[in-house]
Order: sequence, then structure tokens, then C-alpha cells
Amino acid sequence: MPKPVITLTTDLGTDDHYVGVMKGIIWGINYDVHIVDLCHEINPFDIVEAAFKLECSYRYFPLQSVHVVVVDPGVGSPRRPILACGENHYFFAPDNGVLSWVMASDNVQRVYAIDATHYFLPKISNTFHGRDIFAPSAAHFLKIYDPTSFGDEITDYKRFKIPVAQVVNDRQIIGKIVSIDRFGNCITNIFEDDLNKMVEMFGKEKLVLTVNTTVIKGLSSYYAEKQTKEPLMIIGNAGYLEIAMNKAHASRELQLRKNLDITLSVL
Amino acid sequence: MPKPVITLTTDLGTDDHYVGVMKGIIWGINYDVHIVDLCHEINPFDIVEAAFKLECSYRYFPLQSVHVVVVDPGVGSPRRPILACGENHYFFAPDNGVLSWVMASDNVQRVYAIDATHYFLPKISNTFHGRDIFAPSAAHFLKIYDPTSFGDEITDYKRFKIPVAQVVNDRQIIGKIVSIDRFGNCITNIFEDDLNKMVEMFGKEKLVLTVNTTVIKGLSSYYAEKQTKEPLMIIGNAGYLEIAMNKAHASRELQLRKNLDITLSVL
Amino acid sequence: MPKPVITLTTDLGTDDHYVGVMKGIIWGINYDVHIVDLCHEINPFDIVEAAFKLECSYRYFPLQSVHVVVVDPGVGSPRRPILACGENHYFFAPDNGVLSWVMASDNVQRVYAIDATHYFLPKISNTFHGRDIFAPSAAHFLKIYDPTSFGDEITDYKRFKIPVAQVVNDRQIIGKIVSIDRFGNCITNIFEDDLNKMVEMFGKEKLVLTVNTTVIKGLSSYYAEKQTKEPLMIIGNAGYLEIAMNKAHASRELQLRKNLDITLSVL
Repeated sequence: MPKPVITLTTDLGTDDHYVGVMKGIIWGINYDVHIVDLCHEINPFDIVEAAFKLECSYRYFPLQSVHVVVVDPGVGSPRRPILACGENHYFFAPDNGVLSWVMASDNVQRVYAIDATHYFLPKISNTFHGRDIFAPSAAHFLKIYDPTSFGDEITDYKRFKIPVAQVVNDRQIIGKIVSIDRFGNCITNIFEDDLNKMVEMFGKEKLVLTVNTTVIKGLSSYYAEKQTKEPLMIIGNAGYLEIAMNKAHASRELQLRKNLDITLSVL
Repeated sequence: MPKPVITLTTDLGTDDHYVGVMKGIIWGINYDVHIVDLCHEINPFDIVEAAFKLECSYRYFPLQSVHVVVVDPGVGSPRRPILACGENHYFFAPDNGVLSWVMASDNVQRVYAIDATHYFLPKISNTFHGRDIFAPSAAHFLKIYDPTSFGDEITDYKRFKIPVAQVVNDRQIIGKIVSIDRFGNCITNIFEDDLNKMVEMFGKEKLVLTVNTTVIKGLSSYYAEKQTKEPLMIIGNAGYLEIAMNKAHASRELQLRKNLDITLSVL
Repeated sequence: MPKPVITLTTDLGTDDHYVGVMKGIIWGINYDVHIVDLCHEINPFDIVEAAFKLECSYRYFPLQSVHVVVVDPGVGSPRRPILACGENHYFFAPDNGVLSWVMASDNVQRVYAIDATHYFLPKISNTFHGRDIFAPSAAHFLKIYDPTSFGDEITDYKRFKIPVAQVVNDRQIIGKIVSIDRFGNCITNIFEDDLNKMVEMFGKEKLVLTVNTTVIKGLSSYYAEKQTKEPLMIIGNAGYLEIAMNKAHASRELQLRKNLDITLSVL
């Protein structure tokens, strides 16, 4: 059986010492665990972005891994810290909806409001619960795997509505851009399962994507299939349809931003 | 007893391979140690910034940890590499004052000028002692914990004057902004011990902070207590008074920079 | 004998979760290995930059380490993934020339086209072979060290011409700037072996470097030898001649860019 890791997903950036300090706390409690920086460049307070990146990532980690999310505009306020237990993974986060996506996909059945202060740092600041509450709790949790010792089960935790693409009919799906990566690839919420049905019925060449004034015909198999800077659509690495360019930054070149609507239809 | 880690605090950035190479050296010598990136985005050559970040961080690491600091404008010159032994932690750094803060707070009693070349790489460059001297020395040190084997004790090491806030009287403290973090929080040198005395005597609501043309009334308990973009003051995660904004970048919005004077007084 | 590590050199950046996911895969397969981020800020698709950074770095890692390079504009296309076995190190990369430099310096004799799909992830995307092919292959390789189990040996792998400096005669070397680091140091392809011959014959003070309109006289021993912002030349940490400035950003101040020609001659 694979050994678990702790992943960290935060908006803390790497200009400061904040992430490093969280690791010091974790290894001080539990030396025999690997820690993975999943992403620290979430835009400050962007809960939806963090939720989506976590959804695209968590399943690639060993079973029983613990995922700590610190995107926490309400730090210090009465919002609760929670522990969500999925089928294969565990998640520590503030109760602000940031786990909405993974709660669905990892079939989270139980959520706990963390209040076992003996697992926290002795002194709790009002500005950095990643260090004072989440890091030490996650490190302790990996030793005992008993969620009930961290707090009471709750059912009124926050979830936001996941932006699911709308399958209008056999020939049309309406979705939107949910994330843009470093390469300028615009990741939509149209998932390959829905996409593949259209491909089976009509063929890859017949698909047409429309976003703003850009129209892309045909689903590509790989980036280098197209000329440099030619817009293309492709199934991205997390299974979602992407708008991309070979060796160029599609978001910048095509002026595409998050939350833009897109339409996928058949020629 | 917790096992120690090695932390790295540098101005090397992450655009290059420099930090990675230091880890290769460390693990080549001492495989059984965790390495933490404390911060690599110190502004090039900014010794005071590095000193302050280290001060805010080191106590969160396991006892006996080794902290390596490579902010080293004098690399290759006759400035010495040193090892400072505190009550609970060890520090490797160039002798340029970068340990001034932690020398005070971790009660450093002994400092050694490192010259045991058998712990260095066989070939020493004049431009990267982080790799050639500090990384291998720290890795070896964690095996033997004997500072005397690294060089002779010295007393004439460099220390700069730590910018301490001035408690004028019961009703006034004059300090300055010493650091600005990723979120735009402006961290001052007014420590919670002094602050709390004022709070006990006069109450949180009576405190007034003045910086440039900005006046902030009342000490907040958490960011979300205030409206978005409303200036606030709060005790930050390292115990220092911060000027901040709920969900906004105080430094940018209020045009606050490092070294600006601030006055805390009573209404 | 030192234990090996896995290094990662990519153009994936750290804004996304891509690198973190690769680590999840590696530790899921092989928990007992350290992973080093060598560099993730390679300019997207810049194969030459990645090749040079790898050349400057790999020899500082424990013997038998595995270096994974994911700078891969042709991902998903018929370009092959390869494993190159040097004298002391192993390299996983796409077959696009990115290993050209290390193939020469680590005396690579055998190269394999990786096609052992049982070492890959069950589902292979067309956009992220770092996760689906390279990470799991490297993690498995470190358990068995048998390159033949990963694919057939090939001889027609791609190599680009390494930009070697031209020694015109005893008194002149013509080279170029191949990389610029975070500090603005401009790293040339003039290696210290050639440089030292000139120094022995004529002395450090007699050397003259010309680049654009800048002329630098004398080889410096360390940065702080010169006044702030005074251009200098120095042997950098990888043994290559660098154009630098004490406490300033030479590339910006002198308007120097990659691929500019430089001439080193004798006064």
C-alpha cells in the first residue's frame, strides 16, 4: 500500500516565509511524511481557482493522502476549520466552499468541524491558521487517521455551486473558461465524457468551438499538430476541453479570460 | 525528541538552478534530513529583509534545526562564513549582519568562523558559497553537532542595530514598517508585548495609528471584521502590529513602503 | 555510497499544480526517494536554456541520480520519450535535443526509446507526459536501474550543436552569452580551462572583454572587488566566464541579451 503525503494548496505565494513555516510545524510533529507544494500561487482569496486546481490534482496522490488548503479570506473570523473525509483522500480547509469540487468527485460523506485545540499550536494567531491550526492538525491526523478525535461531525458546511457545462442536446454544449494556466491554455468545464459522445456521433473534425469572436474547427490530438499561434481545441490533462495554441499563449493572443462563455457545437 | 531540518533562506530566486544544486549537495552528504525552502525571494542583497524573515520563522522549526542563510553580496571577498549557535537552533551565514535579529532572540552565545575546508566542496568558486561552503557544512554539521570542528570561536562578528520601536510613554509608541508581505500587509516593528500594555490600559478601540496621511482607529481582531479596502491594524502572525486591508493590498492602496515611520497613540 | 535523488527541470512554472502532481505520482510509486526542483521557470519551450541549466547542475547531485526534464513542445506528437544513461547519472526527457549538453559531458553511451507502457500511468494524456510517462518511469527506474526494461536502445536520437566558444588563437576567444540569471549575471560559453590558459600566459589584468559597446578590462576575483554598477568579468560558479556587476543587474544596466557575441582578447 502506498504511503500518504501531505499536499499544500495556498494563496500564500513564495515571496514570504509562510509556507516554509508550515512545513517546519508539520515535520516537527510528524517527521516521516513527504510534503508536496501543490500550488501557492492561487490568486489571493480566489476560492474557486483553488477548488478547481485541487479537483484536477488530488487523485494523482497516494491513497489516504491529506490535502491542506489555505485560501482563507475569513481567517480569524467565526468561520470554522473543517476536515472532509472522502473515499480515498482527506481534506483540511476553512469552511468557505473551497472543497466544493472534491466533495463531489471523491464522494465525501463525512465532514468534521475541527476544534480539538490540543492538536493546534499553543498560541493561535488571528491571521495565519495555516500555521497554527491546519498544519499541525494535518500532521497529527496522519498518525492516527481518526477524524472523530478532531471535532464533531457537521452537515451545514458551505458548498458553492460547481459551474457544470450544460449539455443542450446531442449537438451543443455550453460551458465556460474556468482556469488559465501558465502556458495560456484556457481550461473549460466541458468534460471529456460529454465531449466524447459528440465525437463518436459526428467525428472530431465536425466539432466547432466558439468563444468571443474566435471560432475553432476540429478537435486536435496534440499541440504540435497545428501551426504556431493557430488556435486549437484539445482535451487537456485533467480531462477538460482546453483552448490552446501551439507554442503560444492562447489566453493572451485571443484575449480570453476566466468565466467567458463558450459554445461547442457540430458543423 | 523532534528530528531537525535544514532551512534555506536566500536571495537566489527560483528562476535558476542554484537552490536545487544546494539540495543535491546536502542530500549527497546527509540523506536523512528534510530541507525546507524558507524563502528564496529575498530582494537581492537585502540583508535586513532576510534577517527579519528569519526572526519571524526559525522558532517554528524543530529544536536543533539548522538554518542556512545565503544573502551574500560579499561572496568571494574576505568576509567570513560563520556558524552561530543559539539556545535551540543553529545558523550558517556569511558574516554580514544577517543574523543580527536571531542572535538576540535565540540567545546566541557562541559564534565560529568556519574554515574547516574538509567539509567544503573540493573546489570553491568565488561566486557561490551557498553551494560550495554553506550547504556541505550544514549537511555535515547535522551529523556531528560539534561546532568547534568547523572553526575557531570569534567575538568580532558583524551585527547591525535592530530597528526597535520606541516606547515614548504609556500613550505613544513610534515604530516603522520593516516588511511588506505578498498580501500587501505592512509589518511594523511594534511588538505585541508593548501593544498589549496600551490595550490593557486604554482598550482596543482607543488606539490610533498614523502613517503618512492615513489614520486608523481601533485594533482589529481579524481581517474580515472590516469592509473590503478599509484600512485596519491587527496583530500579525509573528506578533508584530500590521497595517492591512480586508481582501485588498494595503501597501499598494495606501502607498506604504518599507522604512516609513508610524506612530501609535491613544485617542 | 550516496543515495540518489530525482531532479525535475521543467517549463511548467509554479502557478499551476502540474509539478506537484508529478511528485504525487513519484512518491506513490517510490516513497523512499528525495525529489529536487532543479528549475521550473525555464521559458516555455526553451530547450537550449533547459539543456544549459542541466549541464551546470547535474554533477552536484549524488551518483546514480535520475534527472527528469520536461520541456516538451512536441508533447503528444510522435516524438519519443528517451532515457539516456551517462557514466554517473540518468536522464529522462523527450527526444528533442534537450540532453545535448549533458550527453557530451557525462559521456552518455546508451540511449533508450521508452515504450514500456506498464511503467506509465494507465491513461496517457496528449498534453502532459511529465505526469503520465516521465514521472512514473523515473520512479520505477530508481527501483530497478535496468534501462533495457524501459525500451529498445536507439542511436538516432536528436542532438543540437552545442554553442562552443571558438579559441581563435592564444590571444583571442570568441564566444557568446548563453544564459542570464536572476541577478543579471550574463553567463557566456567561454570555459575556465581556455580562460586560464590566457591568464597564465598574460595575466588577469591583461584580459579584455568586448560585448556591444561595453569593454571590460581585467578578470575579477569576486563581485565586491568592484564599485557598485561597475561592469566586471568573473569566472562564474559553473566555470563559465560571466559578465556581472557588483550589487547590480548587469544584463539590464548594459542591455545584454542571450546570444550576443562577445570577444575576449589580450591588451
